[in-house]
Amino acid sequence: MHIVVDSSTVLVRDASAWLGTDRVAGWVADDIAAVVGGNHPVIAPEQLGPGRPTTAVIYGTVGRSGLLDELNGNGLIDVAGVVDKREVYALKIVDNPLPGVGRAIVVAGSDKRGTIYGLLKVSELLGVSPLRNWSGIEPRRRKSVMLDSSGVDMVSHEPSVKYRGFFINDEYPAFGNWCRIHFGGANARCYERVFELLLRLKGNYLWPAMWIDNFSLDGPGLASAELADELGVVMSTSHHEPCMRAGEEYGLMRGPDSPYGDAWDFNANPEGITRFWRDGLERNKPFENVITMGMRGERDTAIMQGASKAENIALLRNVLKVQNQLMREEIDSDLNRVPRQIVLFNEVESFFFPDDPSEPSLLDDPELDGVTVMLSDNNLGYTRTLPTGPMLAHRGGFGMYYHMDMHGGPTSYEWIGSTSLPRVWDQMSCAWDFGVRDIWVVNVGDIATNELSLAYFLDMAYDIERYGSAHPNNTDAWLDRWVAQQFGGAFDERDQSSIREVIVRTMLMLERRKHETMGEDTYHPVHYGEAQQLLDDVEWLERTCADLRSRCPEDVLGGFVELVYYPACATANLMAAWILAGRNKLYAKQNRVDANAIADQIKERLDLDRDIVHDFHTVAQGRFDGFGLSEHFGFRSWCADNNVLPQRRYIEPARLPRMIVSFGGSEDYNIGSRWIGDCMTTNVFDDPRVTSAVMTIACGSEEPIDYAIESECNWLAFSRFQGATASHDDIRVTIDRETQRRSGQTEGHFTVVGFMAESEGGYAVPEKSHARVHVTVQADPYLPEIDEVGAGTFLDVDGIVAIEATHWAETGRGSDGSCFITMKPYGRTDGAVKVLPSRTDFSGLQPDGTLVPVDAAAAPWVEYRFAVREGGEYVLRLVMSPSMPTTNDAIAMIGVSVNDGPIVVEDTVEDHSQAFYGCDQYNREGHDNARIHETCVNLKSGANRLRFHHISPNIALERIELVREGVELPTSYLGPIESPRSR
Amino acid sequence: MHIVVDSSTVLVRDASAWLGTDRVAGWVADDIAAVVGGNHPVIAPEQLGPGRPTTAVIYGTVGRSGLLDELNGNGLIDVAGVVDKREVYALKIVDNPLPGVGRAIVVAGSDKRGTIYGLLKVSELLGVSPLRNWSGIEPRRRKSVMLDSSGVDMVSHEPSVKYRGFFINDEYPAFGNWCRIHFGGANARCYERVFELLLRLKGNYLWPAMWIDNFSLDGPGLASAELADELGVVMSTSHHEPCMRAGEEYGLMRGPDSPYGDAWDFNANPEGITRFWRDGLERNKPFENVITMGMRGERDTAIMQGASKAENIALLRNVLKVQNQLMREEIDSDLNRVPRQIVLFNEVESFFFPDDPSEPSLLDDPELDGVTVMLSDNNLGYTRTLPTGPMLAHRGGFGMYYHMDMHGGPTSYEWIGSTSLPRVWDQMSCAWDFGVRDIWVVNVGDIATNELSLAYFLDMAYDIERYGSAHPNNTDAWLDRWVAQQFGGAFDERDQSSIREVIVRTMLMLERRKHETMGEDTYHPVHYGEAQQLLDDVEWLERTCADLRSRCPEDVLGGFVELVYYPACATANLMAAWILAGRNKLYAKQNRVDANAIADQIKERLDLDRDIVHDFHTVAQGRFDGFGLSEHFGFRSWCADNNVLPQRRYIEPARLPRMIVSFGGSEDYNIGSRWIGDCMTTNVFDDPRVTSAVMTIACGSEEPIDYAIESECNWLAFSRFQGATASHDDIRVTIDRETQRRSGQTEGHFTVVGFMAESEGGYAVPEKSHARVHVTVQADPYLPEIDEVGAGTFLDVDGIVAIEATHWAETGRGSDGSCFITMKPYGRTDGAVKVLPSRTDFSGLQPDGTLVPVDAAAAPWVEYRFAVREGGEYVLRLVMSPSMPTTNDAIAMIGVSVNDGPIVVEDTVEDHSQAFYGCDQYNREGHDNARIHETCVNLKSGANRLRFHHISPNIALERIELVREGVELPTSYLGPIESPRSR
Repeated sequence: MHIVVDSSTVLVRDASAWLGTDRVAGWVADDIAAVVGGNHPVIAPEQLGPGRPTTAVIYGTVGRSGLLDELNGNGLIDVAGVVDKREVYALKIVDNPLPGVGRAIVVAGSDKRGTIYGLLKVSELLGVSPLRNWSGIEPRRRKSVMLDSSGVDMVSHEPSVKYRGFFINDEYPAFGNWCRIHFGGANARCYERVFELLLRLKGNYLWPAMWIDNFSLDGPGLASAELADELGVVMSTSHHEPCMRAGEEYGLMRGPDSPYGDAWDFNANPEGITRFWRDGLERNKPFENVITMGMRGERDTAIMQGASKAENIALLRNVLKVQNQLMREEIDSDLNRVPRQIVLFNEVESFFFPDDPSEPSLLDDPELDGVTVMLSDNNLGYTRTLPTGPMLAHRGGFGMYYHMDMHGGPTSYEWIGSTSLPRVWDQMSCAWDFGVRDIWVVNVGDIATNELSLAYFLDMAYDIERYGSAHPNNTDAWLDRWVAQQFGGAFDERDQSSIREVIVRTMLMLERRKHETMGEDTYHPVHYGEAQQLLDDVEWLERTCADLRSRCPEDVLGGFVELVYYPACATANLMAAWILAGRNKLYAKQNRVDANAIADQIKERLDLDRDIVHDFHTVAQGRFDGFGLSEHFGFRSWCADNNVLPQRRYIEPARLPRMIVSFGGSEDYNIGSRWIGDCMTTNVFDDPRVTSAVMTIACGSEEPIDYAIESECNWLAFSRFQGATASHDDIRVTIDRETQRRSGQTEGHFTVVGFMAESEGGYAVPEKSHARVHVTVQADPYLPEIDEVGAGTFLDVDGIVAIEATHWAETGRGSDGSCFITMKPYGRTDGAVKVLPSRTDFSGLQPDGTLVPVDAAAAPWVEYRFAVREGGEYVLRLVMSPSMPTTNDAIAMIGVSVNDGPIVVEDTVEDHSQAFYGCDQYNREGHDNARIHETCVNLKSGANRLRFHHISPNIALERIELVREGVELPTSYLGPIESPRSR
Repeated sequence: MHIVVDSSTVLVRDASAWLGTDRVAGWVADDIAAVVGGNHPVIAPEQLGPGRPTTAVIYGTVGRSGLLDELNGNGLIDVAGVVDKREVYALKIVDNPLPGVGRAIVVAGSDKRGTIYGLLKVSELLGVSPLRNWSGIEPRRRKSVMLDSSGVDMVSHEPSVKYRGFFINDEYPAFGNWCRIHFGGANARCYERVFELLLRLKGNYLWPAMWIDNFSLDGPGLASAELADELGVVMSTSHHEPCMRAGEEYGLMRGPDSPYGDAWDFNANPEGITRFWRDGLERNKPFENVITMGMRGERDTAIMQGASKAENIALLRNVLKVQNQLMREEIDSDLNRVPRQIVLFNEVESFFFPDDPSEPSLLDDPELDGVTVMLSDNNLGYTRTLPTGPMLAHRGGFGMYYHMDMHGGPTSYEWIGSTSLPRVWDQMSCAWDFGVRDIWVVNVGDIATNELSLAYFLDMAYDIERYGSAHPNNTDAWLDRWVAQQFGGAFDERDQSSIREVIVRTMLMLERRKHETMGEDTYHPVHYGEAQQLLDDVEWLERTCADLRSRCPEDVLGGFVELVYYPACATANLMAAWILAGRNKLYAKQNRVDANAIADQIKERLDLDRDIVHDFHTVAQGRFDGFGLSEHFGFRSWCADNNVLPQRRYIEPARLPRMIVSFGGSEDYNIGSRWIGDCMTTNVFDDPRVTSAVMTIACGSEEPIDYAIESECNWLAFSRFQGATASHDDIRVTIDRETQRRSGQTEGHFTVVGFMAESEGGYAVPEKSHARVHVTVQADPYLPEIDEVGAGTFLDVDGIVAIEATHWAETGRGSDGSCFITMKPYGRTDGAVKVLPSRTDFSGLQPDGTLVPVDAAAAPWVEYRFAVREGGEYVLRLVMSPSMPTTNDAIAMIGVSVNDGPIVVEDTVEDHSQAFYGCDQYNREGHDNARIHETCVNLKSGANRLRFHHISPNIALERIELVREGVELPTSYLGPIESPRSR
């Protein structure tokens, strides 16, 4: 059966429909109008006209809808699947459900939110983006849409996580300006837009903005809270705002004559604070809330500066007791019916883990019985302590306060969304597996540009069966659908594919380094070509985005710019500015005159940054005006204050003619001076895959250079043997490996002769420049032993081996059946491997924090095969995601074995004298988005096998790097290029 | 008696006068014409006219002058004082010496050079500068000059050093271009100018230019050598050019068909090389020479690259034998009549000191018997190994190859003379005292701008009785005379005093750091105000020089510019460029927008550098054209290749308004951010002498700042309480110490509130800036104990004491009567102390290199008195001149004792595993022109006495600095300002 939705389709409500479902029906009516035109009234059955039967969307909530009862009774629908369910809906196309309705989609919700989700599902089926109203994405207009039962008839499942939502935070300058420009403040008009977004994304829970806004005062008054309740949005306050009071409220109401007193200090002013809380609870009790418990200092600071942990805990215990009593008195004498949460954010976490395990944990405080304990991520999307051991017994369950935006350490990131979907999958599926299932809240800052990752986060929360750890590597397919959902109506398949690629490449750029911590020294300007690779990506992004935009229909332009174009172009431009700053620095160090042209390019990039933000602010009639305001360059502390934008270095050309020769991939340069050495060596051809490399001849003075290459080597070819430049010339040097092999030579020589003007200002300059270049070629790497181990074995180049973790040769299951899986894409380079089930733990860590001897041999492993020319000591660098220990004990162990030797178990946490959260290692790894654990291994000459053994949970291995003792690993951000493999 | 020299004065020669003395008489005639006008023929007695008796200068050489014999016989003169003397002359005013001559000055030389010096003395007496013809300094024109017997009659003494001269070296680009521009090459015309300079400065010995010039080929032919011989100039070749062959000659003459063969390799081509040497000796034997022996590689390189020391020594022994034999055959069978030298320069020195003391030294090689051994300085004016122990027995004596210009390590300096006279006095008087008395040769590069220090060097060599170690601190008076000699005719007393001050301040700037090694990081941009002090000096020099030049008569303008104006202004400008670069770097780090204005100033300084050199090249009809060509900025190796000029950093203003508050003397700054800390502390008032300090309020963005100061402190006054700036404002903060003392406070507080625009581009910016400043004041430092020790005791400030070495309280003689003397000016700051006699050595170092226990108690000492608030461990930093060990054993010991405690003897040489010359310490100290030796001392609270004990010779102490354990000494180049003293 099918139904044709066209301009005549109406929406039919029940007399007893919720206000909120009617409001949502209005949204859907508007959606239908956007698709097929016309006017789609939301009417009662009795308003249906007598004329030609029309098509309709009939909606209601089972249990309060006579209409549904009737259809159920008629057998037209079957509500059995939704009765007594939470937030579930059934959709069904039915014939002649009502007089005047020939055919209808019936939406039967289990409750208010179920009905709303059902209604919004209809819009979705019509090709309406959930971001339609938020981002400005109009659906493809059609005369009519035919929907078939096969796609429509369904019964939804209960959402996996009970409370799913986000937190609007860090609202200045972006959200704060945006809401004032568009709505005059963070009022109910503004929140209607937010609630719509939340519900369309299948969320149900919100922490409102609170830096200077008061959700329950600014509606005006309670208007926002009332609207939330009408729409079924469960409200709360953020982690440090107890009893439904916004954090700023106390500041507004305190004073010497205030009933609340004049001190945010529960020890000094218990009556005032208690009354303040009581009045908050009383005010908001009509609405559906999750009530935050606990207490912090004003504006999210530590509650008792300088107090001991014991004093803090004692205070908290008292606070919890009072708060529970207030809730009993004001809301419900049975606290089991009062949804409550306490959030272990920042230093608060530590209060829950006694230094001495024999002391009682705050978690066991009877006042927390039944309270959902919200755990946190590490501010960067990696979960912190997860429920283990005795924690699991906690009644009230666990939640997760996750971050896709941060105003705090190790770095703030409030500008453009920088969260990668694979990390969300990895960490949130892990959190679910560990039992974090009751509340998922994500800090999305000003929301804008975080919609993509927010949608994925809420999809996971809504349907963990589909998106959890049973389905690794689902983000690519999810992204395909997401792009189709937003842009399927406006762009053809090829363009959609380009959009996906733009998003993926932007995401990877930011996965490697966030905007705010990017700097001129992050990527090495020449080693491994990593800087140039990034610039190439920038160029591709800019070209592709411009191309897509030229074809973008006006009615999705806002969404396209906000979700695709602006994040990509702004990110690319910022990265380019810093890469150019690094190049400028290197060239300036070498005194290349083209350093100055690079400096000018930096300035252009900085101007472009302003232009891109301005474009974002003005596109689509200023829909996003304000959202681009957050600072994003050069943070020198955890926040933007005291940041620095890329600086430009201008060199003064040398006064005497100077030729500067450098060879691709190395900072070395040579000016062909007979006084200070005229020789340089390049080992770029030691990598057998390299067929050519670029040599640059640059000017160090304003004097142009005539140069000639005098080669003594018959297996090197040059793209040019002579030339002249006033800036720089790139010359491609190509190796003929066949001739080289036949020659038996492993070294070749040539000289770049610089003929410079014979005079400076009329004075004689008797020198000319001879830069002699030695080219080394590693002897044929295909040793006999390697042939024995077969194709695909990685081979060292100059004592360095690099292997992407995904390129393992073999894996072995743990004694419990656990096994490594491959995640791809993941992390900074190619992907990663980690072990499922998530809770697999061979660390021997006991619930009391003690360790028993590790049975490493029972743990799952993954094996890498490679060969090295020279045996001996090697530094093994394990590049891992910077995930956090899953317990409060700051232990994150791994095991390594070589060639079936003993398994060496090491802790990747460097310093156990302090909490991991906030420590130096945490900060450094957070900036780099990588943990690099170094250890030593002894290799034999020839083929080797290295196993990585899973010990502690929640560790993802991204790559392994091996560096022979005495070999200096060139500095780089992403590490050496993956090694060549035997054929 | 007096004589009036006027336009009629003639010069009378003897028939048998030397060609050379006649030529010099011609110079003197021209000098007289320059002073009194007229024409002054050099005539024979018989040419004297019969008319009115005239005045004359009669000259001759005793022993070959009938005229002198006659005057002697007449009793008019007495030649007894010159007979059989070396280079001596007698001057006497006599009446009616000859018919037609009423009165004459008779010049009676003991030999050719004595006669020449006597003649030139007459010019000097007439007020003619020795630099007249070289630098362009015309004497004051007068109608006539009356000279009195009291000033004229004299018998000169024998010059102290036998061979006194200089080496024209490193002739490209400066000397090479200059001589080609003016003379078409380094030919006899050019050398006549050089010989004249040498003789007028009382030198007699020259090593000619040899980078690409061949003295004995380019005259043309032997013309230059012949002219030298005519003028009595003893020629040699430089340290690595044996047998009167210029280094480049072999390159010109070698070849497969050459009689000299085609290899500069005495092992492979002994016949060719021998013949090459023989022909050189034969060619130059007609002239007076000192013949260089030994052999190095071509172009002053090591002779046998990669060979062992033993192989080198063996080769040298053979070479010396052959060379002596050649001289016996070609010049004189009695080698005692052949002046010979061998130069221990660079690595050659090491061949003379066997690693195993039991092995014979090359010095004892019989072939070196009677050969003068030329020792060297360390390339920077500090002597290396001096004659001690068995060396003293060497027959042939010792010479010194000294440097006022260098093309080599640790840094080249070839631009503008940077040698300070006090160091020349210190080191060359020491060398004399150690027995270096036979040859003094100084490398003066292209000569230009080294005339001043060259003149002093040659004055010392000529008259060590007057300028040696018996007369410390003679350089100020010498400089007074020198300035009067050059500029007494053109400038009044006050201007001459200004000129002296310009020279002294320029010399001090360069004594602190040479042009070439100056850098942006040399001086700290704010600590101790050292950078600003240098900029103030720059400003003074520029103003004073411009003022002097405006009054400079045209006929001494060349000399004024070359000797005073150009060295001062060019040096000042270079220093300013680097200081600005350091300031630019600091401001850029702080993100001050005025960093960009500083960057522009750097560019102006670099342009000015070119303008100053151009002015030097064009002044006085281009007399100095070419002399300013040497590179002088930013050497990154020992030479100019790969140097770097000051780079400019341009910042991008912060996008949000930013106020940057800093307090004089500290790099700290505060932007008044509530997020990352709004507090800063200044301890500038801890120094009781400080009455006020500058606080700077600077902009970090393009947004102007309105600021106001809210003070909570009644003892601090502010030059302004509010203001507005778009760049920066300096506010003077003044302390009222009386009020502060009465208040009992040791800390004061105020806040700088920055009111910045309320919006950025129309968007709200809700913050303003509060920078809170804590001002500390050290509690009253006049402790009781200090009163007990009396006035003048140095007092610590914040745990730091700094005392100029010259400010000792007491000295004690050594058991041998040796005693510390004060040298002032000397070194980088105020002066220094060192011990005389120069050879005083309490190190216990034996001739065989072993050490016997040091009798430190017998050594002379110097005592410093100071008081510290807190007792305990202090780091003692002894700042010394970077002099070299006087022996090859790399030992330079000093002793320290505190409060009559034990004398701790330490070696200031850090690493004994290698030769000191060329080691890291040598390089570092050479760049800094200071040795800073750190050790630990334990002080008591209150008054302390610290003694510095002389142990090894040739060590000058410049300052002592003490830093309490745990106190961080602010980085600076010159160290903390000297401590306050008790009253």
